[in-house]
Amino acid sequence: MGLYFANVADELVGDALAGFARAHAGDVRWDERDGYVRALKPAPTRRVGLVSGGGSGHEPLHLGYVGTGMLDAACPGRVFASPHNRQIFAASRAVAGEDGVLHVVKNYTGDKINFGIAAERLAREGIPCGRVLVDDDVATESAEIATGRRGTGATVLVEKILGAAADTGMGLSDLVALGTDVVGRCRSLAVASAAHTSPATGQAAFDLPAGAIEYGVGIHGERARRTLQERSLRDLAEDMVAALADSLRLDARAQVVLLVNGLGGITRLELYAVLNEVTRLLDKRGASTVRTLVGDFVTALDMRGFSLTLMAADDATLAYYDAPADTPAWCGRAG
Amino acid sequence: MGLYFANVADELVGDALAGFARAHAGDVRWDERDGYVRALKPAPTRRVGLVSGGGSGHEPLHLGYVGTGMLDAACPGRVFASPHNRQIFAASRAVAGEDGVLHVVKNYTGDKINFGIAAERLAREGIPCGRVLVDDDVATESAEIATGRRGTGATVLVEKILGAAADTGMGLSDLVALGTDVVGRCRSLAVASAAHTSPATGQAAFDLPAGAIEYGVGIHGERARRTLQERSLRDLAEDMVAALADSLRLDARAQVVLLVNGLGGITRLELYAVLNEVTRLLDKRGASTVRTLVGDFVTALDMRGFSLTLMAADDATLAYYDAPADTPAWCGRAG
Repeated sequence: MGLYFANVADELVGDALAGFARAHAGDVRWDERDGYVRALKPAPTRRVGLVSGGGSGHEPLHLGYVGTGMLDAACPGRVFASPHNRQIFAASRAVAGEDGVLHVVKNYTGDKINFGIAAERLAREGIPCGRVLVDDDVATESAEIATGRRGTGATVLVEKILGAAADTGMGLSDLVALGTDVVGRCRSLAVASAAHTSPATGQAAFDLPAGAIEYGVGIHGERARRTLQERSLRDLAEDMVAALADSLRLDARAQVVLLVNGLGGITRLELYAVLNEVTRLLDKRGASTVRTLVGDFVTALDMRGFSLTLMAADDATLAYYDAPADTPAWCGRAG
Repeated sequence: MGLYFANVADELVGDALAGFARAHAGDVRWDERDGYVRALKPAPTRRVGLVSGGGSGHEPLHLGYVGTGMLDAACPGRVFASPHNRQIFAASRAVAGEDGVLHVVKNYTGDKINFGIAAERLAREGIPCGRVLVDDDVATESAEIATGRRGTGATVLVEKILGAAADTGMGLSDLVALGTDVVGRCRSLAVASAAHTSPATGQAAFDLPAGAIEYGVGIHGERARRTLQERSLRDLAEDMVAALADSLRLDARAQVVLLVNGLGGITRLELYAVLNEVTRLLDKRGASTVRTLVGDFVTALDMRGFSLTLMAADDATLAYYDAPADTPAWCGRAG
């Protein structure tokens, strides 16, 4: 297991889920048999259950966002592998409201297939099911890449905003429309100076020369199209903000929510230094950075890197963003 | 700079402080000239200002605990170096209340000297000044080590509890007594599977063979007295809990606050798996784990490891622990 503290590599996720359930016993329940984490205190006003999930290794995503004001349930897969459609079906049936269930799905083939099969089964049981597909990673935005943008950091913002909207009693079709709108307002980009290590093999997922930066890395260690040689944070931030702003067609008077997200192995000093550069660049463009989040929200095991997510907010999305929530990992602030 | 994202290694701390101030502009102010971070909204009931500080590289300690209900000010030094006594003096004078100022000091020679000089200067100005020395690390608990136990994870608990007590209007001598009592209730121990990398040199602080564990590492990369060969998390946790419980003389019916703290480069999966083992071991001893914290609270740059802190709580300390606080990094919960 090399660098990993574990009993048996295969059991790391299961042991972690048991610990998570123990730490947050008053707020969430881990259903080991059916494979999902469920919120114990959802708002009684909800008419639609919110379910997400995906491979493990991205904690606190999604488990940490199960709770009052965010997700009703999350289905963890094995490390970097989609949850089984049985898990998603069981979770969805358990938390569906009178207007059904909404799936928040990151844009990866395995997740799409498994959430899709679960949705078909739910439909056969007469449970309405909608989907919001999160695809924010501009590193895979290209006509040559048929699968489109991957889903990464924006997922947290989508889960927060949809949670607050669901708490108002919003119906399924309006939630789908809102979530789709929010996804369209978000773009992310990730860089790494060292790959994650695999819990199974103890080896780094890829090797980088000293000082090199993988520009556009994926949260499962997908290699980027570009490996940069050593460059200052200032130059790097300038490239990243330009790529995000261009893809978003960011208006000069935009209100921006900025997420500076650690991928697992980076220091807080660096994340705050990144935030300093990025807010300066946004200022220069005339955009207002109206909210900031700094910390580890969507990780890639122990990858040494960070992602930036920009959301071009409007007053409605900001109000949902600001609504109170109480989950293991949402504090609505930097950490 | 190797793995670090920075402009110039020397400027990383300054850039991070600027970013921190930007991210939390409504709640804290960074006084760059005098070198301290100050809370903007302290409780009006406080009669004593709470000041801490220490080397940078341990974020969110101490900056993240400046705010309503915890510290009034924190003085960051350079990476792993004590703040200058001028910073501590300026911060203390700025936040001193009618009953003076209390210094929360981790047990390191440089910090003790600089806080001591500041205290002498405060006394000459007629400002009462007390000190709580935090010394919780059992790795340096030995008759042969004259400097005694180092100050590590317990610092967060001490800052939280003293903050809540200060908010009740408690006077200086009572706060010193309470803080000293809390320190006596806490013990910590840290392990690492890989050292941190130095921002200045880009090199690992020390090398470990694959699978080896530095048992009793310090938060500045101080080597331990023992390097263990590969062992399961279960066996490791058993050794650690026994060492902590022995040093605390933990009663079979104790109420325990458990902090599972990431040192910077470890995954959340591992931290939750650690929590699972430790709570099981505490159960076995008959102790009640009444509160748990999981996440990065006191880091050692990007060190790949974790620390455990146990506090043998009583009802009074728990009530202070549970009191609301609003700081950049205190959520009173796992993250």
